Amino acid sequence: MKRIPFDDVQRTLAGVLRKLGFAPERAELCARLFAETTCDGVYTHGMNRFSRFVAMIRSGHVDVTAEPRVETRFGALERWDGRCGPGNLNAYAAMERAMVLSREHGIGCVAVGNTNHWMRGGTYGWQAADAGLIGICWTNTMPNLPPWGSAEPGIGNNPLVIGVPRAKGPVVLDMAMSQFSYGALESYRKRGELLPLDGGFDTEGKLTRDPGAIETSQRPLAVGYWKGSALAVVLDAMAAMLSLGKATHQIVPDALRETGLSQVYVAINPEAAGETEHDVADGIVESLHRCAPAGSARYPGERTFQIREENRRLGLPVDESVWAEIEASGIFPLKSE
Amino acid sequence: MKRIPFDDVQRTLAGVLRKLGFAPERAELCARLFAETTCDGVYTHGMNRFSRFVAMIRSGHVDVTAEPRVETRFGALERWDGRCGPGNLNAYAAMERAMVLSREHGIGCVAVGNTNHWMRGGTYGWQAADAGLIGICWTNTMPNLPPWGSAEPGIGNNPLVIGVPRAKGPVVLDMAMSQFSYGALESYRKRGELLPLDGGFDTEGKLTRDPGAIETSQRPLAVGYWKGSALAVVLDAMAAMLSLGKATHQIVPDALRETGLSQVYVAINPEAAGETEHDVADGIVESLHRCAPAGSARYPGERTFQIREENRRLGLPVDESVWAEIEASGIFPLKSE
Repeated sequence: MKRIPFDDVQRTLAGVLRKLGFAPERAELCARLFAETTCDGVYTHGMNRFSRFVAMIRSGHVDVTAEPRVETRFGALERWDGRCGPGNLNAYAAMERAMVLSREHGIGCVAVGNTNHWMRGGTYGWQAADAGLIGICWTNTMPNLPPWGSAEPGIGNNPLVIGVPRAKGPVVLDMAMSQFSYGALESYRKRGELLPLDGGFDTEGKLTRDPGAIETSQRPLAVGYWKGSALAVVLDAMAAMLSLGKATHQIVPDALRETGLSQVYVAINPEAAGETEHDVADGIVESLHRCAPAGSARYPGERTFQIREENRRLGLPVDESVWAEIEASGIFPLKSE
Repeated sequence: MKRIPFDDVQRTLAGVLRKLGFAPERAELCARLFAETTCDGVYTHGMNRFSRFVAMIRSGHVDVTAEPRVETRFGALERWDGRCGPGNLNAYAAMERAMVLSREHGIGCVAVGNTNHWMRGGTYGWQAADAGLIGICWTNTMPNLPPWGSAEPGIGNNPLVIGVPRAKGPVVLDMAMSQFSYGALESYRKRGELLPLDGGFDTEGKLTRDPGAIETSQRPLAVGYWKGSALAVVLDAMAAMLSLGKATHQIVPDALRETGLSQVYVAINPEAAGETEHDVADGIVESLHRCAPAGSARYPGERTFQIREENRRLGLPVDESVWAEIEASGIFPLKSE
C-alpha cells in the first residue's frame, strides 16, 4: 500500500481518461469524483474500481463522449436519456439539474434512463447537502439479490442515497439493499473471518455467517429480510417508470456488461419551506451522541470527515498493483490526444 | 371474533366520531379510513386501534376540530401546520394536496408538522397509486428504537410508505424501520412462540428471538441493523427540517401522549414523464413471480387484494370485546349532537 497526494491521483486519472477520449473538463470531473471516493474511504468504488470502468469503456458499454439529453420537461420533473455515458458524470449532471429545479420550484426531480453505474452513490448526496439542499437518489442494478421467498437473484441491491444539509456538516446515508455487498463477502472470506451477523443463505437454504457459502449460493440477504427486498422492488419500479428505462429484470446480470441503468434524482430546498439555518439536523446529531452509552451511536456520514481529512493530509491509500494498473491503463488509448 | 359488514363498521365509527365532535364529512372519512385498514388486513391499525384514538381525543392530544393550515407555499413545495388534528385526516389531506401539486408541476411535496399518528401509513400510498401517481411519505415517531451502537431508544421506527401505480393494481410498500413492531412481539409472546429471526437484543446485549426478552430490554432491532437505523435518522431529519416541526428526540416517549409528529408527503406524476400505461410495474411483478421457485416471491401489497375482497365479502373481523368497546365509546360524548 502506498499513499499518493490527492492532486496527483486526480491528475493521473484525468490523463488516462483524456487518452480514452474524454473531453478535458469531463476528464477532470470524472477523475475528481473517483479521487474523492477513495479520499472519503469508500475504497471499493474509487481507484479500486477504475480498471473495471476502463474495461467498460474499452468494451463499448460506456460511451465517453455521450452527454445526457433531456427527453421530457414538465415543471419540476424531467426525464433524461443517459445515452450510456459515464455513470458518474451523468449522475452528477442529473443531481445538479435537480438542485436547480428545487431552487425554482422547492422540489425538483430528474429521472435518467439508459445510464451506467454511478460508482459511489453517496457522492450525489454530498453534492446536494454541501449546497444546502436535501438530495435523494437511487439507482437500479442488474439482478444480484433474491427477492424474499425466492432462491434466485431476481432483484437488484438498488442503492438509496439521502443527503441532508447540516450547519456542522452534512448527514449522508448511502445504503444498498443487500446487508453485505459481494465485495464485503470477499473481504471477510480472504481474511478467514465469519460475518458479524447472518449475511445470506447457504446452498441448503440455511442462514449463515460463512461468506464463502453465500458467494457460492448467490443468496445474500436483503436488509431486513422481506422489508429490504420490498424496498428494492419499489425503487426499481419508480426508476424504470419515471425514466422509461430498463427495470432490473431487463439488465444483463454480468458486472462487466451491466449497462442501461435507471435512476432518480430528487432535490428539496429546505429554505423554500423556511428552514434557513440547517440546525435541525444538528439537534438530531446531538441527541444521537447523547444516547447511552454516550458517543456510541454515530450519524450517517460521521466517519467520512475524519477519513477525508486524514487521506487529504497523508495521501490517498492505494495498493501498488492497483496504482501500476491505473498508470498503465492509458497506454493503449482509444483516441490519440 | 365476529364479522361485521364494512358499511356497518363505517357507520358505527362515524357515529362515535360525530359524538366526539367531528364534523359529519370528517367523521365519515375518518371512519372509512379505519374501516379500510381493517378490511385490508392491517388489524393493528384499524378497529383495534380505535379506542386508543378515542382516548387521545378525550385527553386533548387530538383536536377533532382542527384542520391543517398552509404555512408556506413555494412552487411545488408546501409546509403545513397539522394543528394537532386527527392524524389520518391530516395525512389524507396532505397526500391529496401533494397529488394536486404533482399534476401541476410533475412532482409535489407537502411537509406537515404538529400532526398526530397517521394510523396505517399504507393508506396514503394506496391513495396516490390508485389515482395513477407515485406516492412517497414518511413520518417520524416518538423514540422507540435504539440507534445502532446504543442501548437506549433514541430514534423512531419512522415508517416509510411508497405506492406505485400499476395497471393491474398498485404496488404498495409500508415499512417501519424496526424489524418487528412491539405489537408483533406481543403477539408472538402470547402465542408462546419464538420470532422466526433475531428481533432484538436481550438485557445482556445478545441477539435473541425471544419476544419477551426484547419487550423487557426495549431493544428491538432496526431493519438491517446499522442501515435501518441510519435510514430512520435521515427520515426524521428531513421531516423535522421541512415541516419545522419536532424531531423524534423532542417527542414524548409515551404512546398515549405521542403528538406533534412531523411528516413528508411526495407525489410524482409518471404521466408527466411519459409513462401513461402504468405497465412498467406489471413487468416487474411478472418477473418476481417467475423467480424460482415460481410464485414464491410476492410484490409489496400483493396479499392485500385477496384479504380486502374476503373481508368485503364476509364482513370485517373484529374481537367481540373490541366491538363492544367501540359501540360504548360514544356514550359519553365530548359534544352533544
